[in-house]
Amino acid sequence: MSILAKHAGLYTDMYQLSMAQAYFLDGRQNDPAAFYYFYRKNPFKGAYVVFAGIYDLLEILEGLHFETDDLEYLRENGFDANFLHYLQDFRYHADIFSVREGEIVFPNMPLAGVRGNIIETQLTETLLLNLLNLSSLIATKAARMRLVAGDEIILTDFGMRRAHGLGAIHASRATMVGGFNSTSNVFSAFTYGLHVSGTMAHSFIQSHDDELTAFRRFAKAHPENCTLLLDTYNTLDSGIPHAIQVAREMAGRGQRLKAVRLDSGDLAYMAKKSRKLLDDAGFGYVKIIASNQIDEHVIRSLREQNAPIDAFGVGTAVLTGQPDAALDGVYKLAMASGKPRLKLSESVHKVTFPTVTQVHRFSDANGAFMADAVSSWEEDPREIKEIHHPFNKDKAFKIPPWSCQPLQEKVMEKGQALQKMQHPDESYAYLKTRLEKLPDEYKRFENPHIYKVGLSTRLNDLRDDLIQKYKQK
Amino acid sequence: MSILAKHAGLYTDMYQLSMAQAYFLDGRQNDPAAFYYFYRKNPFKGAYVVFAGIYDLLEILEGLHFETDDLEYLRENGFDANFLHYLQDFRYHADIFSVREGEIVFPNMPLAGVRGNIIETQLTETLLLNLLNLSSLIATKAARMRLVAGDEIILTDFGMRRAHGLGAIHASRATMVGGFNSTSNVFSAFTYGLHVSGTMAHSFIQSHDDELTAFRRFAKAHPENCTLLLDTYNTLDSGIPHAIQVAREMAGRGQRLKAVRLDSGDLAYMAKKSRKLLDDAGFGYVKIIASNQIDEHVIRSLREQNAPIDAFGVGTAVLTGQPDAALDGVYKLAMASGKPRLKLSESVHKVTFPTVTQVHRFSDANGAFMADAVSSWEEDPREIKEIHHPFNKDKAFKIPPWSCQPLQEKVMEKGQALQKMQHPDESYAYLKTRLEKLPDEYKRFENPHIYKVGLSTRLNDLRDDLIQKYKQK
Repeated sequence: MSILAKHAGLYTDMYQLSMAQAYFLDGRQNDPAAFYYFYRKNPFKGAYVVFAGIYDLLEILEGLHFETDDLEYLRENGFDANFLHYLQDFRYHADIFSVREGEIVFPNMPLAGVRGNIIETQLTETLLLNLLNLSSLIATKAARMRLVAGDEIILTDFGMRRAHGLGAIHASRATMVGGFNSTSNVFSAFTYGLHVSGTMAHSFIQSHDDELTAFRRFAKAHPENCTLLLDTYNTLDSGIPHAIQVAREMAGRGQRLKAVRLDSGDLAYMAKKSRKLLDDAGFGYVKIIASNQIDEHVIRSLREQNAPIDAFGVGTAVLTGQPDAALDGVYKLAMASGKPRLKLSESVHKVTFPTVTQVHRFSDANGAFMADAVSSWEEDPREIKEIHHPFNKDKAFKIPPWSCQPLQEKVMEKGQALQKMQHPDESYAYLKTRLEKLPDEYKRFENPHIYKVGLSTRLNDLRDDLIQKYKQK
Repeated sequence: MSILAKHAGLYTDMYQLSMAQAYFLDGRQNDPAAFYYFYRKNPFKGAYVVFAGIYDLLEILEGLHFETDDLEYLRENGFDANFLHYLQDFRYHADIFSVREGEIVFPNMPLAGVRGNIIETQLTETLLLNLLNLSSLIATKAARMRLVAGDEIILTDFGMRRAHGLGAIHASRATMVGGFNSTSNVFSAFTYGLHVSGTMAHSFIQSHDDELTAFRRFAKAHPENCTLLLDTYNTLDSGIPHAIQVAREMAGRGQRLKAVRLDSGDLAYMAKKSRKLLDDAGFGYVKIIASNQIDEHVIRSLREQNAPIDAFGVGTAVLTGQPDAALDGVYKLAMASGKPRLKLSESVHKVTFPTVTQVHRFSDANGAFMADAVSSWEEDPREIKEIHHPFNKDKAFKIPPWSCQPLQEKVMEKGQALQKMQHPDESYAYLKTRLEKLPDEYKRFENPHIYKVGLSTRLNDLRDDLIQKYKQK
């Protein structure tokens, strides 16, 4: 992300640098380590998350370095001179493995792994979590809206004004991974090559002495791309008749009014009335856009009511990931100094997985996703006959002779990204193929089925051994 | 904000530029206009918001311009050549009026006003909302935590990993406006001169073969600033005994272990047990820090249980503003071409205020805040004897002979900020003086009292006249 390039080294939590210094002073700067990224709880009471954001991360890590004023700042904050000298020449050389952007993923599954020396892998944590947690949250929310909207309806991100400051940059892109068509966010569109779109605000109409004049002026300025906002004074008594008049005048000039936008009131009622008035006047080609507090539940309800809405402008709910606002992704140590590592914690569901891991997705004869197995990296998935519940020792699941597919692939080698930034429309195309293979019971909004993610017997045994060893200490 | 400087012109919603082009093609580039910023609904079921974020906005607006590649991008998106020529020389020259950072504000109150030509005032919208909505949301959340924590307890922002990407930059600063003491976010600390702090992660301990060695190495690397994390394996059986041993070794070297951190389990129970063990070993000076899903309700509960916790590390809840995730602030036209303007809408609570406005805060003889009056800018507040409910015609409130104070002041003149970036600790110092004057019934978490905000009779009459006029059309 070019806007962070200069000071990306400081875009981290203080303790990452404190720990890095401790590793350095202990002579461990070349000590190999591996971390992995996963989340614990599905947002939106759903059954899955849409993974997103890896490309921004790779771009920033490729250029990660410390400027002279960064080092001066750290010196003022008490950092050691030899460590700062080390940071001066610091470049990122780790390998990163990750599931694909647009992959459907589940709680406790390792989604990405970082392997390198302990300093660079530790310093990855904050950046990785800050970027992947946001983009995956927003892509997941957007995908829920696409699911209920169907393929034909246009979904546009209008959320920049309620987004979290510059977080809008990544969030708008992530809506495309989840299946949105376009954004009002010009900066993101410019940066990532997204489709950009926009209509008009109430202020444009208010700034004229009357609505009809405002509509005419806008049509004159944007004959190819004119959407008129209907509810500044009164949608049905004023907005629609004026829009029809302008549509007629445009038609006289060989132009087409593109759309009208509803932004308040009962959207189902207003859309039906507006559609009829437009159709009766011969403007069946004028689309209806609806905005105002849209989320997946509103879209579903409007679809159930057969509201003739062609496009939704979605704001706050998609770009802030309401009501959850965060994905609880974490980044945990799996290997250090050549040994698998574990965290026990006071809470059993916070016990981590040791060693470097891969995820294998098992599909039945019809290609439907059935279960995911977490194994150690080099394990042969054909030997996985059973998976074990991550936190409940009594629960295991026998794997029938299903086909399987590894989900993580190498995306960075020695600090160099192996893939260019992918357009989010491609990520969505991939997501679509994956959603087709996900059985419906995982997609429903109300109490969705819980997808099976378990440990291979080999990984489970390794973990049990380690737990026993730590407990004996 | 220097990181946006280059392309700040594109950091906007597409329709702002579309409308700007329509104004330009209509020859209205010098047409005067005024907009105002307000919000409708208090977040967190509270009674007020802490206003924040104005300085970042002023800094970006001062440098607002369009680069050659910005203009090329807009040209590719169908913008008019003459309009792009105008944007090439565009500089921001508007005046901005605003309440102070750290002010306590209420729904429907005009918090900021922007006056200039219609193009620059329109182009302000997205930037203003994107920055003020976030910072005010986060400052409000932080202030709720400070309220229940009392003055002595240290509150640290640990939220960067769950923040919304680069939104963390502004959000961490905003926690200070609400009364936080420090942040783990090095980038924000560097940018805004915040106190930065950090402890250690589980990974540091896991990366060593045993906990005691890890603690010793960290103490060696950070003798002046050593906080040990206790729950990697078992807080009371392992973490605390090892921390006490290291505290003893440090004491032998004339050093002091600064603190221990609890990050899972029952924090009240763990804190009491840990405190006793530390005290019994003679380490009464070692502080206890608690983290893990902290919010204002958890802090209040732990305080009620007299948990001996000296500092809280607060993450997701403060930096994402859970569970609301957004402040619903909007930016509406109040004047154009010398005339007051109004939006009626389908929803009565969405009707706006016309003309350029000021807010006067009335205080009783003890200095307690009693009610706020929205008036037209030039109105003499001593003539305000009654305020009128913004949306309910039957409700009015007589103002006794209370003292009053105007809340908005000029912060930008002709595009130049009149104030330098204020350190957020100063904003919090101001907030503290204001909270002392806010009666307790507005501060409680459960069903707080609704603060009175009304229109002066003169503004109310102007608005009624305009509503009638629009309805007759």
